[in-house]
Amino acid sequence: MASTLLCRQLAVNLQQNLRLSAPSYRCISKAATKSSPDLEFDGPSMKTEVPGPRSRELTEQLDKIQNTGAINFFCNYEESRGNYLVDVDGNRMLDLYTQISSIPIGYNHPALLKVMQNPQNLSAFVNRPALGILPPENFPGNLLDALLSIAPKGLRKVQTMACGSCSNENAYKAIFIWYRNKERGNMKPTKEDLDSCLINQAPGCPEFSILSFMGGFHGRTLGCLATTHSKAMHKLDVTTFDWPIAPFPRLRYPLEEFVRENAQEEARCLEEVEDLIVKYRKKGKMVAGIVVEPIQSEGGDNHASTDFFKKLRDIAKKHGCVFHVDEVQTGGGGTGKFWAHEHWGMDDPADIVSFSKKMLTGGYFHKDELTPAEPYRIFNTWMGDPSKNLLLNEVLNVIRTENLLDEVSRAGKVLMDGLYDFQARYPHLLSAARGQGTFLAIDVTDEATRNNLIIKARNKGVVLGGCGERSIRFRPTLVFKQHHAHVFLNIFNDILAEYK
Amino acid sequence: MASTLLCRQLAVNLQQNLRLSAPSYRCISKAATKSSPDLEFDGPSMKTEVPGPRSRELTEQLDKIQNTGAINFFCNYEESRGNYLVDVDGNRMLDLYTQISSIPIGYNHPALLKVMQNPQNLSAFVNRPALGILPPENFPGNLLDALLSIAPKGLRKVQTMACGSCSNENAYKAIFIWYRNKERGNMKPTKEDLDSCLINQAPGCPEFSILSFMGGFHGRTLGCLATTHSKAMHKLDVTTFDWPIAPFPRLRYPLEEFVRENAQEEARCLEEVEDLIVKYRKKGKMVAGIVVEPIQSEGGDNHASTDFFKKLRDIAKKHGCVFHVDEVQTGGGGTGKFWAHEHWGMDDPADIVSFSKKMLTGGYFHKDELTPAEPYRIFNTWMGDPSKNLLLNEVLNVIRTENLLDEVSRAGKVLMDGLYDFQARYPHLLSAARGQGTFLAIDVTDEATRNNLIIKARNKGVVLGGCGERSIRFRPTLVFKQHHAHVFLNIFNDILAEYK
Repeated sequence: MASTLLCRQLAVNLQQNLRLSAPSYRCISKAATKSSPDLEFDGPSMKTEVPGPRSRELTEQLDKIQNTGAINFFCNYEESRGNYLVDVDGNRMLDLYTQISSIPIGYNHPALLKVMQNPQNLSAFVNRPALGILPPENFPGNLLDALLSIAPKGLRKVQTMACGSCSNENAYKAIFIWYRNKERGNMKPTKEDLDSCLINQAPGCPEFSILSFMGGFHGRTLGCLATTHSKAMHKLDVTTFDWPIAPFPRLRYPLEEFVRENAQEEARCLEEVEDLIVKYRKKGKMVAGIVVEPIQSEGGDNHASTDFFKKLRDIAKKHGCVFHVDEVQTGGGGTGKFWAHEHWGMDDPADIVSFSKKMLTGGYFHKDELTPAEPYRIFNTWMGDPSKNLLLNEVLNVIRTENLLDEVSRAGKVLMDGLYDFQARYPHLLSAARGQGTFLAIDVTDEATRNNLIIKARNKGVVLGGCGERSIRFRPTLVFKQHHAHVFLNIFNDILAEYK
Repeated sequence: MASTLLCRQLAVNLQQNLRLSAPSYRCISKAATKSSPDLEFDGPSMKTEVPGPRSRELTEQLDKIQNTGAINFFCNYEESRGNYLVDVDGNRMLDLYTQISSIPIGYNHPALLKVMQNPQNLSAFVNRPALGILPPENFPGNLLDALLSIAPKGLRKVQTMACGSCSNENAYKAIFIWYRNKERGNMKPTKEDLDSCLINQAPGCPEFSILSFMGGFHGRTLGCLATTHSKAMHKLDVTTFDWPIAPFPRLRYPLEEFVRENAQEEARCLEEVEDLIVKYRKKGKMVAGIVVEPIQSEGGDNHASTDFFKKLRDIAKKHGCVFHVDEVQTGGGGTGKFWAHEHWGMDDPADIVSFSKKMLTGGYFHKDELTPAEPYRIFNTWMGDPSKNLLLNEVLNVIRTENLLDEVSRAGKVLMDGLYDFQARYPHLLSAARGQGTFLAIDVTDEATRNNLIIKARNKGVVLGGCGERSIRFRPTLVFKQHHAHVFLNIFNDILAEYK
């Protein structure tokens, strides 16, 4: 491994020398310089269109096994480094999408490779335990060192799960169990409860509901999907629950210029939330919980004000609903704070906070009272994966040691200033630049133009992702620095010039 | 690592020498000998009650973070080897439960450690891709080499997922999508379909159902849970679907002695299946699929005859329902064939076969026509984990190279003969020994006695698991050999003597 890294360092040095004589990158505000030498590449390098011939060949192979309609291209993860994703045709791209926002500290981070090279850690990778019955010795300690060190305010319990959907599914179950227990006055379930639940009938299986928002995304398993309302193709033809769906505020950006209009819009949505809670109660489908993303991500990077979330949290309390903040995409530092809900500045922001993606393991934090009294109620074979906890622990060390959240804020400012500049210069094309930290988005005139921009950017060496109907979302790693923002802005500037 | 293994080998040798002078193990039929020298221990070694003081201390720590009611004890996975699980108090136990049937070739198998030590593989562990959009170069090849090399008859497509529940959830979605597409006559969805599905309404979200069986277990997320009917505590208080639930045959064992009675019981259940399909069709809840385990595992190791499954498969065809065989627990070799449904000897056994546990990755095989035509319909961020595919590939190599399925049959015969002997000698205590390969079970008089037996066995160095109301299930690894069966039988023989 050491020799591979050495070869790569030599290659990088060589490239830097070449770069000095190549005037291909121009910068809007200042030169794209790097603050410290590392093993990362210093810019994109494109050899073919993307997907290139090798990617297309592999897509054909895979198409015999799976639907490949969503495949962008095939990757060479061994050669990828930091913010640069290398594909199988030798193209090297600056990655601002990061596997749908799930690479925390870049590709092949040396600290993570070191975790893998430590013989003491191997056992965690080859012996996956049934964590709920036979955990490894270091499990409680690792939870304390890693996950609980970043627990949201007021939440001292955590349950790991294998992915984001499983996290939300189990959080919903914990919500139902808590709610029914409250209804039963903490009494033990009756024989009728126990018998009827086995055959999917009330009273054992009550008709509860989770209130969610239009445009929200909470996963694609059947329970989660009942609260997901971002794109029709996610939900089409799948049997679901009749659960209440409230409108999510459709704000005008920049937020500071439309304070009054936005406040009205938010008030309208909050009123609808309360109406729905009452309406579903009358229908006999008690709203046991409210689930919401701090920023609707898949649905189009839709923001709401701190005031909105405070009032929503109050409504949940008033009506005895669990308040579940889904930070699967927003969590892990991209907004400049570890959890996006920290921007609300509340003392008691949530009863449940679910996570996955950049956290490497799925799971959810929760209030003490949301721990079921009985075992096996929140349970499955694996209940997460200690090998992911191990890697997460190291990710958190790197975030702290390198003050990455400050870096995110700095790089985010450069990126945001660039987006503001673009939308000022191309108002017919771009609008509504918005976001926090590097968790940013901008709207494009229409879906087709947005998709074209993404493809053009890719062919110039930048990986971007779409969201909503016509937005581009920016989801770089936490090691995305100011100079990376400049690399992106220069390339995008060139692309936009074609739209003058 | 090499030095650790060397130390361990020395320790094993030392132990073998000690063992020769220790007469503690007696054997029912023949001496517990090992066929070949390996790095495994040669017997249990107990130092404390289980859970011991260190396990109890760690349980107290973990209890501040999670419900610990299901924790058996804490493990030292680094020191565990082959069929022997070592706990944090230095107790070494022969493991016949294997993390709820999910350790395929034993703890710390050298072949798996080697995978981890190969620098070329590290990247797969630290760069988890979004497989649905940006797969690694070796992804199609690995699917072909590993998963598709063991694809059930007639199934040429495979979709990986993170766990068993996600596998079944997505299989159910694929079933619904296929069924609705058929209803629509392969036409594109209408605008009304697309609009209504976003708000959880028909026609976009049709009211389909999956028929399942009493006693079945298919996972604990909301969709899966609607088809799980093994224990009340899994389902209590969780909102669910009104889906049809058929009786699963309650057979008398040994099967060959009760052929006529069992055939009648199976006919009764099959009749009920057809009645339910018709009844739910009339209710407007078309039965889009039937899900069944080849052996109901969590529900109590309930078997049915090949004839039952053939007729059930025919009913599915007759009524246009997808036939989904859930091999999450039965798959991977424990029954002596790679898939339990192979024992049926059918040409077209299933439309979908889901897997997880011993397969290390979740997922499901399916017929070509169950691939949705559009991308993003079966999709999530990770869609499995290539690092698990890598380990699975090596597991399959070991299974083939070491002819482990033959070993399973041989060891299973010793185990089964022992169980038959026990139930003949303790008819007031044990009954209904049953199973295939090493995938065996036996019934105990009542739940309390079953639980006591399991605790006593643990304190004598054998890890067992319960299932159903009063059964013990045997789920050893695929490297569980005849001599391991003898070790277990000797210990259990001693325990049973107390019940004379």
